[in-house]
Amino acid sequence: MTQSVLVMGGDGFCGWPTALHLSALGNEVAILDNLSRRRIDAELGIESLTPIASIGERLAVWKRVSGKTINLHPIDIAHDYDALKNVLEEVRPDAIVHFAEQRAAPYSMRSPAAKRYTVDNNINGTHNILAAIVELDLDIHLVHLGTMGVYGYDGSGIEIPEGYLDVKITGADGNLFHRSIVFPTAPGSVYHLTKSMDHLMFQFYARNDGLRITDLHQGIVWGTQTEETRLDPLLINRFDYDGDYGTVLNRFLMQAVIGHPLTVHGTGGQTRAFINIQDTVRCIAIALANPPERNERVKVFNQVAETHRVRDLAALVAGIAGATVAKVDNPRKEAAENELTVSNAAFRTLGYDPILLRDQLLSEIMEIVRKYADRYLPEAIPARSVWTRKNKPGVIKQGRDRS
Amino acid sequence: MTQSVLVMGGDGFCGWPTALHLSALGNEVAILDNLSRRRIDAELGIESLTPIASIGERLAVWKRVSGKTINLHPIDIAHDYDALKNVLEEVRPDAIVHFAEQRAAPYSMRSPAAKRYTVDNNINGTHNILAAIVELDLDIHLVHLGTMGVYGYDGSGIEIPEGYLDVKITGADGNLFHRSIVFPTAPGSVYHLTKSMDHLMFQFYARNDGLRITDLHQGIVWGTQTEETRLDPLLINRFDYDGDYGTVLNRFLMQAVIGHPLTVHGTGGQTRAFINIQDTVRCIAIALANPPERNERVKVFNQVAETHRVRDLAALVAGIAGATVAKVDNPRKEAAENELTVSNAAFRTLGYDPILLRDQLLSEIMEIVRKYADRYLPEAIPARSVWTRKNKPGVIKQGRDRS
Repeated sequence: MTQSVLVMGGDGFCGWPTALHLSALGNEVAILDNLSRRRIDAELGIESLTPIASIGERLAVWKRVSGKTINLHPIDIAHDYDALKNVLEEVRPDAIVHFAEQRAAPYSMRSPAAKRYTVDNNINGTHNILAAIVELDLDIHLVHLGTMGVYGYDGSGIEIPEGYLDVKITGADGNLFHRSIVFPTAPGSVYHLTKSMDHLMFQFYARNDGLRITDLHQGIVWGTQTEETRLDPLLINRFDYDGDYGTVLNRFLMQAVIGHPLTVHGTGGQTRAFINIQDTVRCIAIALANPPERNERVKVFNQVAETHRVRDLAALVAGIAGATVAKVDNPRKEAAENELTVSNAAFRTLGYDPILLRDQLLSEIMEIVRKYADRYLPEAIPARSVWTRKNKPGVIKQGRDRS
Repeated sequence: MTQSVLVMGGDGFCGWPTALHLSALGNEVAILDNLSRRRIDAELGIESLTPIASIGERLAVWKRVSGKTINLHPIDIAHDYDALKNVLEEVRPDAIVHFAEQRAAPYSMRSPAAKRYTVDNNINGTHNILAAIVELDLDIHLVHLGTMGVYGYDGSGIEIPEGYLDVKITGADGNLFHRSIVFPTAPGSVYHLTKSMDHLMFQFYARNDGLRITDLHQGIVWGTQTEETRLDPLLINRFDYDGDYGTVLNRFLMQAVIGHPLTVHGTGGQTRAFINIQDTVRCIAIALANPPERNERVKVFNQVAETHRVRDLAALVAGIAGATVAKVDNPRKEAAENELTVSNAAFRTLGYDPILLRDQLLSEIMEIVRKYADRYLPEAIPARSVWTRKNKPGVIKQGRDRS
C-alpha cells in the first residue's frame, strides 16, 4: 500500500535516504526541512566527508534517476506554526516521518546555547506537529525517530522491551498490582532528554486526542549509503566523522583510513545498540505499513539490529585496517561499563532481517572514506563537547601511552 | 536558618503569598516575574475578584507593613536567558522557588495558541533556569511547584508515593528485579504534561550536574488569604473564579455567594487532592529548610492535605450556603469516577499539620467573596475550554434539569 508521506528533516542523514527509499517504493513523498543541518555544519566549520549536493540538486537528480518528484517545503516547524499548518493542509499526508530534531548528543552538551537550542527546537517542533494535527482534525500517522538512549544504560540486566514494561507493585494494603507502564527513561544528554520528553507528549496526545503515533527507539546508525543513494554521486548521503555528529563506528572507520588512532572513550566498556542506515530506511517503511489504530496506545519499536561494546568495535576495525587504538578521557558522564539487552521482536515479527556488522560492509564504507579522504579535517575528529565541568574532552594527549 | 530566596512567578496566586511568608520569616526575598498573569487577565477579559494592586504598590505596602524590602526583577525567563543569568549573578540566591509557569489546565487546552504558549513558556523557562545554574556554576536549591495532576487519576488503588515507586520486574531470564522508579505519569492536560516534562529535566540535571532540586506535587489550592496578605488590603491575594483559572472549590464558593448553581462537571465523581493556600506557603518554607544534598536524587513531596470527591465538595458548600447544584457536561477528557490515595508522609514527618476543609474556613472565604461580589462577571464562570472536539463546555443549558 502506497501512501502520501511527509518526511520532516528529509535533508538529513537519516531523512534523506528515507525520503528516497519511500519514493522508490512508490509512495508520494514530500520533504519538509529548514536545512538546519547545513547551518550547523557552517557553525562548526565542518562538512560531511562525502560532498553533499544542494537540496535542489538532490531533488532534481532524483527526478532524473527515478522519474519521481519529491517536493520541498523549507519550513521551520519549531517557530513557524502557520507555515507548518499550511503545508499539512496542502499535502494532507497519510503519514509524517519526523526526523526534524537536533540529533547529536555531543552537540546538545556543547554549550548552554546548544542545550537551549536543542530543547527549544526539538520540543516546540514536535509539539507543533501534534497541535497542528489536532487543530486541522487530520488523521495522520506520526512516525517519530526516538533513540535507544532514552532508556539509559544502567546495566540492570533487564531486557529493554518495546516501550512498555510489565511491573508488579505492592499496594499500601499489601495487595499486588500488575501494571504495564511506559519504560522509565534515564536519558544521558540533553538530546536524549528531549526524546524522552517527546515521548510524554506522544502519550498525552494519543490518550487525549486519539492520535496514531509510532515512536522508533533507534540504535546508533552506521554506514552511509543505501540502495537509492548509490544511484548517483549527487544523491550520496552524509558521512559525519566529527566529534559532535560522527557516530562511533563511522568515526573509527574514518580514523582507520587516515591513520589516526581509534579514539575510545574511557574503557570502551559502553555497550550500545547499532543499526545500518539501510536498515533504518527499511524499518521506517515497515513502521509506515503497520500503523496503530486510532485511540490505540503509542506503538514503540526498538529499531536495533545488534549490540556491541565500543572497545570490541574498535578492535574489529583495528583488525581490518591495521589501526591502533587510543584510550582517551571520556567526555561523557556515564557508567564506564554496562550491559545492554534489547528486544527488537516487533520489527522482526514484521519481517525485519537485520544487516549485521561484517568485515565486507565495513570495507565498503572504508572505500568511500578513502575516495573522499582529501576532504577530511584532522581538527574535527576529537570529541570536544564535555558533559560536566569535571569531564575532559576525548583528545589524545601528547606523549600519552596509546595502547 | 534564613536564606536568600528568589521567588520566580512571585506576582501570582501562589507566588505572592509565598514571597511575603518567606520575607516575614526573615529570609532575603526577591521576586522575578514577567507579570504574565496580569496579561492573561487582560486577554481573557477578566480580573481576580479581589482587587490586585500593582506590583509596585504591593511591594511598597509590604515594606511599610513589615519593614522588609522585596526587590522585583521583571524578567521573562523563557525568552531572555541573558537577563535571567544577570539576575542570578546579581542576587546569587541560596534557593529559587519556581512558580513561573502557566498554571491553568483549562487555559492550556483553550486553543492551539494556548497549548503552544504553555509548552514553550513552561519548558523553555524551566530549562533556562537549569542551564543557567549549571553555566554559572552556582549551588542553588531549586524548589519547583509541580502538580498532583502529573500522576493521572486512573483509580488504580495504588497509594501515590512521593515521586518514586518500588516495583518488581521479571527479567527475560525469569529473575525478579527490584527497582525504585520515577512514578509513571499520566498527565491530563497540556499544562499537566509540561509539569511531567519538567520532572524529566530535573531528573537529568540532578544526575548529570548534581543540581539540588525539590519537586512539589501540589493538590488543588483553595482559599485566598494568608497571615501576611491579611495585613493590608493592598496585599490581598488573587481570587480567581473563572472557568480557566478558578480552581474548583473557589468557584463553588463564588457561585454560592452570587446565587449561581454550583456547576459540577459530569458526575462529580472525580476525586482530587486539596490544600489551603496558607499551607502552600508553609510547605514551601519546610521544603526550603530541607534541601537535598548535591548529587542526591530529586526530592519529591506531595504537597497535599486531603482528598475529596468533587460532588462531595459541592454538597458541602451547598449545605453551608443553601445553594443548588447543577450537573453540566464535563469539558475534560477524564474518568467519570476515580479513587485517589496520596501519601504526604514526607511533609508530615517534617512537621506539616494540614489545614483541613472546615465550615468555618469556607465561611471566611465567602465573606471575602461577598465583600467583592460587585466585581463579579457572570459570563466568566462557565468552563469553556474543552479537551477534545467531542467534549462540550461546562455550561448550564436552558431548561435543563438542575438537580
